[in-house]
Amino acid sequence: MFVKYLECIKCGQRHSAGLNYNCSKCDNILDVRYDYESIANRIDLRKIPKKFSSLWRYKELLPVDDSKNIVSLNEGGTPLHKCDKLGEALGSKNLYVKDETRNPTGSFKDRPMTVAITKAREFGAKTVSSSSSGNAGVSLAAYSAKAGLGCIVFAPTSAPKTKLMLITLYGSKIVSVSGTCSDAFRLAKKASKHYGWFNATSTFINPYQVEGDKTVAYELCDNLDWKVPDWIFIPISDGPLLVGCWKGFKELRLLGYCADLPHMVGIQAEGCAPISRAFKDNAANVKPWGTPTTIVSSIADPLVGYSQDGTYTLKNIRESDGVADACSDKDILDSVKLLAKKEGIFAEPAGAAPIAGVKKLFEQGRIDSDETIVCLVTGTGLKDPNIFMKSFERPRSINPNFNKLAQLVDKELVK
Amino acid sequence: MFVKYLECIKCGQRHSAGLNYNCSKCDNILDVRYDYESIANRIDLRKIPKKFSSLWRYKELLPVDDSKNIVSLNEGGTPLHKCDKLGEALGSKNLYVKDETRNPTGSFKDRPMTVAITKAREFGAKTVSSSSSGNAGVSLAAYSAKAGLGCIVFAPTSAPKTKLMLITLYGSKIVSVSGTCSDAFRLAKKASKHYGWFNATSTFINPYQVEGDKTVAYELCDNLDWKVPDWIFIPISDGPLLVGCWKGFKELRLLGYCADLPHMVGIQAEGCAPISRAFKDNAANVKPWGTPTTIVSSIADPLVGYSQDGTYTLKNIRESDGVADACSDKDILDSVKLLAKKEGIFAEPAGAAPIAGVKKLFEQGRIDSDETIVCLVTGTGLKDPNIFMKSFERPRSINPNFNKLAQLVDKELVK
Repeated sequence: MFVKYLECIKCGQRHSAGLNYNCSKCDNILDVRYDYESIANRIDLRKIPKKFSSLWRYKELLPVDDSKNIVSLNEGGTPLHKCDKLGEALGSKNLYVKDETRNPTGSFKDRPMTVAITKAREFGAKTVSSSSSGNAGVSLAAYSAKAGLGCIVFAPTSAPKTKLMLITLYGSKIVSVSGTCSDAFRLAKKASKHYGWFNATSTFINPYQVEGDKTVAYELCDNLDWKVPDWIFIPISDGPLLVGCWKGFKELRLLGYCADLPHMVGIQAEGCAPISRAFKDNAANVKPWGTPTTIVSSIADPLVGYSQDGTYTLKNIRESDGVADACSDKDILDSVKLLAKKEGIFAEPAGAAPIAGVKKLFEQGRIDSDETIVCLVTGTGLKDPNIFMKSFERPRSINPNFNKLAQLVDKELVK
Repeated sequence: MFVKYLECIKCGQRHSAGLNYNCSKCDNILDVRYDYESIANRIDLRKIPKKFSSLWRYKELLPVDDSKNIVSLNEGGTPLHKCDKLGEALGSKNLYVKDETRNPTGSFKDRPMTVAITKAREFGAKTVSSSSSGNAGVSLAAYSAKAGLGCIVFAPTSAPKTKLMLITLYGSKIVSVSGTCSDAFRLAKKASKHYGWFNATSTFINPYQVEGDKTVAYELCDNLDWKVPDWIFIPISDGPLLVGCWKGFKELRLLGYCADLPHMVGIQAEGCAPISRAFKDNAANVKPWGTPTTIVSSIADPLVGYSQDGTYTLKNIRESDGVADACSDKDILDSVKLLAKKEGIFAEPAGAAPIAGVKKLFEQGRIDSDETIVCLVTGTGLKDPNIFMKSFERPRSINPNFNKLAQLVDKELVK
C-alpha cells in the first residue's frame, strides 16, 4: 500500500495509518496521504485493464494493505450518460449524469462502504457501526452481510421505513434514535468508542472512507478521455463525496493526467442548508443548522456537534472556485420528475438536487451553455418512493374487452 | 446488420426482417436468423474493447441496422458474483449469481427493451405498447422516456403499485386490466394491431426482443474465461430469457468460442407452473394454467391463449438436457432472505426463485457439489418491497442518551 500517514487537515499532526479517527491533538479531520511518486512509477491509470470494472481497479490509490481483504459487490464503474434532452430543458449543451443509482445498493454510499468494510476486516473488527439517514446504513448492512461481520446502524426517526427494513433484511441491527442525524451521529460515535465497534459512519470521522468517494473523479476523467468537466454538481449534507471527488481531481493533476480542475458545486435543501448559508454569508466557519425542515431526508444533516466537517467542505468548495447553494423541496421534486421523463432515470430527491442546482445557477448566469456539466445523481428513488406513492392512484381497471379499451383510448390514452 | 430473415420455429416459413410478429402462415413464433459466417469474419468476441460495457458491445449479433438508432441506458454488463457463503448454505462449491438487479431499471427486462425501443425507432414507430406484470412495463417506460416515444403499458390488477407509479413517473400511460397477465397480453396484442402501436411485450410475440436476452450467455462466458457453466437457473413465466440465453450459448458454440453447452433450468412458482407441470408429465405441449395462486407476481403468467410459447420454452429446456421445476412461495421468500443475508443482494421473489430451485435440485440429487452453477437473479426487490414491509415494524426509538443505548445493547444488540 502506498499510504504514508494520516494528517490532520487543521493542525497538520501526523498519525500512523492505523485505526485512527479524528486527530488526537485537536480532534479535527484526518486525511490519508500517499507516496504519489511511487504510485506514478507503479501504474498508469489509462492502461488498467477494463475487466476490472469496480472501483478497486484503482487499488494503488486506495488505503488497503492486502487485496485479499477486499469486500466488493462490484461498486463504482457507474455509467456517465450524456443527457441531451435534460440539457435542452435546462439550457446546457454539454450535460452529463453520473448515475450512482447503479451501485449495488442503489447509492454512491457503496463507494465509502466497500473501503470501510475492507479496512474493518484488515483491522480485525468483528462489529461495525454507522450513523445514517438511510442509504449509508443500507450499504453498510449489505457489505457486512457479504463479509460476515456484525453491523449496528444508528438511524434518526426520519429515516425512511423501506431503508430500515432493508437494513434488517441484510441481517443488521438498528438503533432508532429520537432526534436528527446529528443526534444519531453523536450516539454512534460514543457507543462505537465504548464497545470497540469499527465506526463506519460516512462523514469524515473515519479517514479511509472518503478515499472510496474520490474514485468518482477517476471514473469521470476516464469516461471523458481525460478531459476535466467545468462543473461538478453534488448533493451535500456533511460533504465527503464532494471533498473526495475534489481530492481525486487534485490527485489526477498531481499525477499528470490532467491540467485543469473543475468547479465543485454543493447543493443542499433550503430546509437544511448550513454550508450554503455560510457560503452566502461569506463566513469562515459553518454553523449548525438547528432543526431541518425538508423532505429531502438523505441530506437533512444539521451538523450539530461536528460543524467542522461543514467548514472543511466549504473550504474545499472555495478552493475549487465553486459554489454552495440550496434549492427548495418543490424544485428538487420537480427535478426528480424531469430526470425520469427526459432520461429514464429514477432518483431519490437528494439524487436529483444537482439538477435543481444546475437550473438555479443557469438562472443566476453563473454557467455558460457550452461548458461541460456533470451532475452526480447519488441515489435511486426506489428505496423511498413514498413521496411519489402518496400522490399516485392505482388507475381504474377495465375488463379485458376491446370496446372498453377503445373508449379509454379515445378519452385519455392518445392525444 | 447480419440478420438474414425471420424463421417460424414451427413451420419454417421465412419472413423478411421487417415489422413482423408471429408467423403469417401458422401464427407461431418467429426467430431471428443470422449470417454467422460473416459475423465470424467480422468480429472476435474475445477482443471487443471493454470500454463498450453495455450489451451493445455485441451489436454484430443483434438485429439492428444502424447504430444511430440505439437507445441505451447502459444495460447489461451486469456483475457475476462468486457466492461462496450462499453456495455453502446450498451445498455448492461453485455457485455464481448473475446480478441482473444492476440493470438500469433493476431487472433483466432492460435487455429486451433496449432492443425493442431501438427497433421501434428503426421502424419509425411513434407509440410503443406492452403487456407486463410490472418489470417489463417499468423498463419500456424508461426507454420510451429516453427515446421520446409514447408508451402504453397493459398491466393486470396484480401488478405491484410501485411499478405502476414508476411507469407513470416516466411519462407512460397505463391500462389496468381486470384479470391475469394473459388477459392483459391478449388485449395489448389486439389494441396494438388495431392502433398500429409497436408491440414490445417481452414474450415471444416480438421476434427481436429475445435477441437482447441472449447477451446474458455472451457475458457469462466472457466472465468465466469462455468456460461454459454446467447449470443455468432462470425464473420463467413465458420463458424468453431462458430461450434467449440458450440461443446465445448455441451461437457461441457455432462460432467456435466454446465446445460445451449448459443445462438450462427453468424455475416457476408452484401456484403458476404450466411449464414445470408439462415437464413432469412428460407432455409434448404446455397447457394453460388457469388462475395463478402465488405471490411471485413477476412469473405468475398462466399462458392462456399463447401456451405455444410455453411449449417452445419446454422444447428448449429439453434440448439442453435441462429441468423445469416449481418451488413454493415460502421457499422462494426464504431464498430472498438467504441471498440478502449471505451475499448482500436484495432480489424480488421471482429473482430469488433460482436459489430455491438450486436447493431443490440438490435435494433431488440432480447436481454435484463441484459443478458450476449460475443463478440469474433477474430483478431487484426494491420495486416491490411490500411483502417484506408488511412484516416489518419500525423499531422503537430511544432518546440519544448513552444509558438508554447501553440497556439496548445488553438486551438485544450484541450476542
